Amino acid sequence: KVTEEVLFFPDDRVACKDYFVGEDGCNNNDCRFTHFPNSLSRLYEFINGAKGRLDVCVFVICCIDLADLLIAAHKRHVLVRVISDGEQTEITGSQIWNLRKAGIAVRTNKSSFLMHHKFVVIDDQLLLNGSFNWTRQAISGNQENLMALGNKRIVSLYTNEFERLWNAFDPQ
Amino acid sequence: KVTEEVLFFPDDRVACKDYFVGEDGCNNNDCRFTHFPNSLSRLYEFINGAKGRLDVCVFVICCIDLADLLIAAHKRHVLVRVISDGEQTEITGSQIWNLRKAGIAVRTNKSSFLMHHKFVVIDDQLLLNGSFNWTRQAISGNQENLMALGNKRIVSLYTNEFERLWNAFDPQ
Ligand SMILES: [Zn+2]
Ligand SMILES: [Zn+2]
Repeated sequence: KVTEEVLFFPDDRVACKDYFVGEDGCNNNDCRFTHFPNSLSRLYEFINGAKGRLDVCVFVICCIDLADLLIAAHKRHVLVRVISDGEQTEITGSQIWNLRKAGIAVRTNKSSFLMHHKFVVIDDQLLLNGSFNWTRQAISGNQENLMALGNKRIVSLYTNEFERLWNAFDPQ
Repeated sequence: KVTEEVLFFPDDRVACKDYFVGEDGCNNNDCRFTHFPNSLSRLYEFINGAKGRLDVCVFVICCIDLADLLIAAHKRHVLVRVISDGEQTEITGSQIWNLRKAGIAVRTNKSSFLMHHKFVVIDDQLLLNGSFNWTRQAISGNQENLMALGNKRIVSLYTNEFERLWNAFDPQ
């Protein structure tokens, strides 16, 4: 069955990454994060489910937990590629440098216009797309949406857009 | 057949609203806008196609041409409702006051968090959703996407979200 889900934010509480996608679950008896499924926990599961390829094309990436999931995917040999906005990589809290330090290739636009997409393609078969930037404010404060669509034709349009931008933003 | 399209921005040139959706077409021999179909012209057509209801839930609304299409819809007795971000209504170029002056009901969030959605539901049967705010920069400069989906289940999820926010942002 083709995936077709919509996640709305904000969540009431921040989902515990360890509980939902950690190898050993959450061992913290005083965990201040929630163990009830919500929009963020579902997003954790989608990203953690990547087996071969993660194409991330997101304007702002500041959320440490989501960046950590990309690094974890990279460590288990998923091909992780990240496109983000050039100016946003300089802001306080940006996780772009942590991604690069971990060995993940990141490309950005050099123009003063915005690389404003907020989409992810997982294993060439699932698209996440909406208004959702990877920030704590988007998770816990803002009104946001994120669609998860497995429709092949739509996914391929976004894969093409990712490749086009990846080549356009080639640092060479 | 169920609509399923993706529009990518930026467009090379701004589409001529009169040419694509004006009652009499474009009569300007020196028109500086393009008459070739592009992403914006398709968006014009979607909005202009509304027959009964337009639920607009968009973070930033500054584009005069798109705001004019909402006012034109209102004048032909389409029920137009707009939700936008409270702080963004105060910025230079915001079209929110023009919409209100024309008699369109607009509701906004009062919190410091963002009403960050950028979706539209047309006649309860077509969803437009993506990264695209209604600004000239989004049309002509930024990397942006906008999906047009007629999938009933997905449309109904966004209709529900619209009603929820419409009630939450009730000025009374
Ligand atoms: Zn926990
Ligand atoms: Zn013209």
